[in-house]
Amino acid sequence: MSARRRLRMGMVGGGPGAFIGAVHRICLAMDGEFTLVAGAFSSDPEKSRQTGAELGLEPARVYGSWEEMAAREAALPAEVRIDAVSIVTPNHVHHGPAIEFLRRGFHVICDKPLTTDSRRAAQMAAAVRKSKRVFALTHNYTGYPMVREARELVRGGKIGQVRKVYAEYLQGWLADPLEKSGQKQASWRVDPKRSGPGGSLGDIGTHAFNLLEHVTGQRVKRLYGKRSSFVPGRKVDDDAMVLLELGGGGNGTLCCSQVCVGEENGLRLRVYGTEGGIEWHQHHPNDLKIYWKDRAPEIRRAANGYLTPSARSLARVPPGHPEGYLEGFANIYRAFARAIRGQKDIEDSFPTVQEGVRGVRFIEAVIASSRRKSWVGLR
Amino acid sequence: MSARRRLRMGMVGGGPGAFIGAVHRICLAMDGEFTLVAGAFSSDPEKSRQTGAELGLEPARVYGSWEEMAAREAALPAEVRIDAVSIVTPNHVHHGPAIEFLRRGFHVICDKPLTTDSRRAAQMAAAVRKSKRVFALTHNYTGYPMVREARELVRGGKIGQVRKVYAEYLQGWLADPLEKSGQKQASWRVDPKRSGPGGSLGDIGTHAFNLLEHVTGQRVKRLYGKRSSFVPGRKVDDDAMVLLELGGGGNGTLCCSQVCVGEENGLRLRVYGTEGGIEWHQHHPNDLKIYWKDRAPEIRRAANGYLTPSARSLARVPPGHPEGYLEGFANIYRAFARAIRGQKDIEDSFPTVQEGVRGVRFIEAVIASSRRKSWVGLR
Amino acid sequence: MSARRRLRMGMVGGGPGAFIGAVHRICLAMDGEFTLVAGAFSSDPEKSRQTGAELGLEPARVYGSWEEMAAREAALPAEVRIDAVSIVTPNHVHHGPAIEFLRRGFHVICDKPLTTDSRRAAQMAAAVRKSKRVFALTHNYTGYPMVREARELVRGGKIGQVRKVYAEYLQGWLADPLEKSGQKQASWRVDPKRSGPGGSLGDIGTHAFNLLEHVTGQRVKRLYGKRSSFVPGRKVDDDAMVLLELGGGGNGTLCCSQVCVGEENGLRLRVYGTEGGIEWHQHHPNDLKIYWKDRAPEIRRAANGYLTPSARSLARVPPGHPEGYLEGFANIYRAFARAIRGQKDIEDSFPTVQEGVRGVRFIEAVIASSRRKSWVGLR
Amino acid sequence: MSARRRLRMGMVGGGPGAFIGAVHRICLAMDGEFTLVAGAFSSDPEKSRQTGAELGLEPARVYGSWEEMAAREAALPAEVRIDAVSIVTPNHVHHGPAIEFLRRGFHVICDKPLTTDSRRAAQMAAAVRKSKRVFALTHNYTGYPMVREARELVRGGKIGQVRKVYAEYLQGWLADPLEKSGQKQASWRVDPKRSGPGGSLGDIGTHAFNLLEHVTGQRVKRLYGKRSSFVPGRKVDDDAMVLLELGGGGNGTLCCSQVCVGEENGLRLRVYGTEGGIEWHQHHPNDLKIYWKDRAPEIRRAANGYLTPSARSLARVPPGHPEGYLEGFANIYRAFARAIRGQKDIEDSFPTVQEGVRGVRFIEAVIASSRRKSWVGLR
Repeated sequence: MSARRRLRMGMVGGGPGAFIGAVHRICLAMDGEFTLVAGAFSSDPEKSRQTGAELGLEPARVYGSWEEMAAREAALPAEVRIDAVSIVTPNHVHHGPAIEFLRRGFHVICDKPLTTDSRRAAQMAAAVRKSKRVFALTHNYTGYPMVREARELVRGGKIGQVRKVYAEYLQGWLADPLEKSGQKQASWRVDPKRSGPGGSLGDIGTHAFNLLEHVTGQRVKRLYGKRSSFVPGRKVDDDAMVLLELGGGGNGTLCCSQVCVGEENGLRLRVYGTEGGIEWHQHHPNDLKIYWKDRAPEIRRAANGYLTPSARSLARVPPGHPEGYLEGFANIYRAFARAIRGQKDIEDSFPTVQEGVRGVRFIEAVIASSRRKSWVGLR
Repeated sequence: MSARRRLRMGMVGGGPGAFIGAVHRICLAMDGEFTLVAGAFSSDPEKSRQTGAELGLEPARVYGSWEEMAAREAALPAEVRIDAVSIVTPNHVHHGPAIEFLRRGFHVICDKPLTTDSRRAAQMAAAVRKSKRVFALTHNYTGYPMVREARELVRGGKIGQVRKVYAEYLQGWLADPLEKSGQKQASWRVDPKRSGPGGSLGDIGTHAFNLLEHVTGQRVKRLYGKRSSFVPGRKVDDDAMVLLELGGGGNGTLCCSQVCVGEENGLRLRVYGTEGGIEWHQHHPNDLKIYWKDRAPEIRRAANGYLTPSARSLARVPPGHPEGYLEGFANIYRAFARAIRGQKDIEDSFPTVQEGVRGVRFIEAVIASSRRKSWVGLR
Repeated sequence: MSARRRLRMGMVGGGPGAFIGAVHRICLAMDGEFTLVAGAFSSDPEKSRQTGAELGLEPARVYGSWEEMAAREAALPAEVRIDAVSIVTPNHVHHGPAIEFLRRGFHVICDKPLTTDSRRAAQMAAAVRKSKRVFALTHNYTGYPMVREARELVRGGKIGQVRKVYAEYLQGWLADPLEKSGQKQASWRVDPKRSGPGGSLGDIGTHAFNLLEHVTGQRVKRLYGKRSSFVPGRKVDDDAMVLLELGGGGNGTLCCSQVCVGEENGLRLRVYGTEGGIEWHQHHPNDLKIYWKDRAPEIRRAANGYLTPSARSLARVPPGHPEGYLEGFANIYRAFARAIRGQKDIEDSFPTVQEGVRGVRFIEAVIASSRRKSWVGLR
Repeated sequence: MSARRRLRMGMVGGGPGAFIGAVHRICLAMDGEFTLVAGAFSSDPEKSRQTGAELGLEPARVYGSWEEMAAREAALPAEVRIDAVSIVTPNHVHHGPAIEFLRRGFHVICDKPLTTDSRRAAQMAAAVRKSKRVFALTHNYTGYPMVREARELVRGGKIGQVRKVYAEYLQGWLADPLEKSGQKQASWRVDPKRSGPGGSLGDIGTHAFNLLEHVTGQRVKRLYGKRSSFVPGRKVDDDAMVLLELGGGGNGTLCCSQVCVGEENGLRLRVYGTEGGIEWHQHHPNDLKIYWKDRAPEIRRAANGYLTPSARSLARVPPGHPEGYLEGFANIYRAFARAIRGQKDIEDSFPTVQEGVRGVRFIEAVIASSRRKSWVGLR
């Protein structure tokens, strides 16, 4: 493996106080696939420099803006410049840097939701197509081994034809007007200018939606949604509930909420088919409950030899040594790295710009349905 | 307690092969409040006699029809005739005997749903009012100690103002056309002539609905529903999903299904308020999970001294000795007995004809909403 | 079934304030097998009369002592006198009435532990043999459907040869000197004159021991034990831990404690063989976890069609409607009734005087080992 | 933070096929505290080179033996040579390199158990003392946030005086003679020359022992143990069970097994005091169950604001995003780094050579007790 080298990564966003930037940094490094060498960590150049220094980056590779970073990195010699960029900014600053870095020939891995509206989403999809570069979207929950096992079982027909889907993502952290306290996360996530029109929908609803389509391999074709803003004065939804119909004839519900006091990151998926069902919950991510028609339910556990090869490949440690959020997230980075290296490996997968486009359409469809009080089709 | 005697009970329905009749018989006897002394166990007089003999009843008190039973029991001396009747027939045979026995001065305890349509439901409510007799409806899940604890907490304001409710009752037993096999339960439950127009809605949806209103103390004021019949040829719904709004400003979902393969009797309720939340699931009925805003969640367990007096009063054995479905069901019977005896006890409660009326309206509202594809108000 | 009649039961013990007497009364009546018609409920005749009146018994059948009851009932006509007696007194009052009622030709069902020492235990076993009557011991946990399933699997060789057993019964109710408060249960259970020399050992240790031998079908052949009395001034053990060796070559631990604060009735059994393992806990008694060597663990659930016929036969309601402590206890009564009626049914079973003898020997062996600090054989 | 630089790490062991070496590499890098720059990855120089190449190390820093590495690294300029070394070899190759690297002034982090016997353990402790360097032992389970919370509660007296401890570590992977298949892990772990005399005791029993002393803050002062080798021909124990007495007056059991089929890495700790208790299980490591005397049990969850500062400091992501084995392990590395940097931080801690010495004494004491069949004191 002499030819292998660590890929050089740059980062847009992830400055002081950012939660998700730190997560991305741990995950890109976890498997030795990437080294962070450059960044435009904040729209405030001073903060960007500060973060770069804390991370031990060469000062010359720490930039005051993503525009500067794109231009300067592209001008560096091939053996020095970054291979890829990780975009971890608020939602309204995904579109610009993603298109620019792609245009300049860099691979891009971008936080979700893809962007704030479907027009921009389409532009990003076009940019990916044109660039022939790898674009990954960090719908990180698809990186959990037991989500992969669920997908293999459901797509492989093991539970028969899908009839019912119940997806939910429940949080409680915005039950009070936390945004008024100046808490950074809360502030931008409930500001439609930065988060887009969907609050809970964009932040967590799209995760549940992506998980549902990822595991079933089916598309939501129509939905009926109702959005709520329970906290007075809040400009975006902090709760939504959606009835949905799948392309294959099944139907179900998707609920997301940020006002369910006591819920942490309660992402749960249940799928029932004609022969069985699956149930998964993020809080105990290494367990997958499987229901069967005439047999007792099973609890499959991560890393065991009895899993599908695809699920097994996502584990780093033996059964019973739990892996969690960071490892699942890192699985997206690992797959992204392999795609950059040109590996063809059916066991690997990561969410692409297409999943991102669908996520944005989902937000818009729920908003439209909630406004019109009618079912809305989803392209 | 010299004045106390066991109350004499008659039964309508509960002949050979009936599941719920046997349950009622265990539960009426559990606390020594009632003795079964008479019955019209089947519309087939021979089957009625057979069941009566198996139960060791006096042959003279075993009747060939409920009409005969009502007339003949009423003619018996006061110290011999039944005090109350338990109606455990299919849904379409609740209305007739309930009104007749009430009219003749008997107390009535009746299986749910109350009846097949709201016109009949109103007639039954009127009959109760006029009779001045006790009428109880066996929405038995309200008899679980930890459901009671949840009600006390939620109604007592401990979790603040209710914002979100998620109720569900998932089964898998009708995932295949079991009714074609001649299975007795399945046959009548999917026959609209006997079950009424709501299949899963009547059988289990009304339980979830009742539980939701029971615990929150709020009324569903509007709903949007979608019914499905997944099994080809089935004439009633085997699945429904409902968006709902509560009188107090909260909202939520209610899902019921009989095609979720592997689910047994998955009745679950979650309620979130501004200060906390509760979660309960029938499969582990002695646990109540309580979420708090700034504290760790608790798991309250049945029969403990730290529970509310009301919840504590529903337990028969010490903490850690699990009580289940039959004990919860028997709690309804015990409360019914106490009401007949004229005891005034705030700790006691049981579902009444009013809850029954609401259940029937709920079924009709979901059917109407599902047909019209619009939100429907619920009186 | 015309020949069938309810069996007539008498009770010794179970007067005011007794917990277990009330349990026995619910359980004997649950399946319509027995009717309670007589009793000597207390050594205080007035209290006995009071309980008899509360239960609605004929005053003539309520006795001031068990000796009187045995003599007078035996003198009644065969079609009136009791068939069997239920002994629910403190441990030191099992031996006397059991032998006397057996001698007079009554069937006996007796609470555990059998008695206070092995000499008396042997006398009771001899009395049973001589009487040719049915004698059942209410090691009630063997009546749980999923304990039965575990037994069928383990004895049937499904988990291979048993290597490891971990049995435990943890409570916390005696963590403080509750006996000084006058609490009735606590008072006699920590009084060696009434409970025998083993406190926690007799009260709960024997249950864990019985469960272990019941499920494995093997005998503990040797043990090393250590008893403790954590609460100052307590005269019996409130905690014990035991290493044990099984006849079949396996070994394991048995722990019982009444000072584990917060534990309710934490009876748990785990058994591991060469091919799999089982795990059961009373708090969720309808679940049985089964481990397999090369497959995912299963969670078998009570009442399902996939269970062994023996386990299935112990359920009264459909899957997902939980049954609990009372139902498991009632299964012992039902099996006792069937034995009295002479039914031969391999699906039935109940603990006999032999299990009782072993339980007493177990207590004595742990006490001896703890004193001598050496391994002690168990006959 | 301009003065901060990544610490340079070397590794001894961790060549092809080693599980734990890969774990150490992920964990040392997770928080950006260390960079791996050198290694003697195998006693086979070719394998060492191969691993070094795969990891992208400079060939000059990849050595054919740890002796060579120690000598050559010590000779490098201070700004180039490693700061610390991570020893991840089989147990019999801890002692040599640890002493040598310490002697040459390097900090050392070493896998557990410390070494194969207490004489060597004492030599290592002396070497640490003399060197004035930081020495950490990767009893990694102490790095879990909720283990830390348990420690804070128990040591802080929140559950009162400790009475009972139940520690267990159950696995099933050695239920068959896997060592005969040539599986690398199995081979050395059951070879007393490489693992030391304790098989399961050294591999997992020491973890349970360390966890127990870590959380309670008490020392085991006496024990009675029984070792077993269930698999024919196995030269070390694959199972042990131990009764133990704590310095503070409590007692309990410790069980470890590698033949419990179906168990993965079932490390569980329960501690009960006079006022409450705690329960933790590795499979769901972000949950800590806490029992209270007169209140309902709590489930505290990692990363929440209601935790003790010490426990909170160990989380990298918000509540509900599970962290696992690698993150807990990385917490040891992070604390090690901080100690090297001279930070004084009461929130930090890691197991030291003293815990290692105790672990070796524990193994020897169980072996002695098992042989002599008597209680053995533990220094």
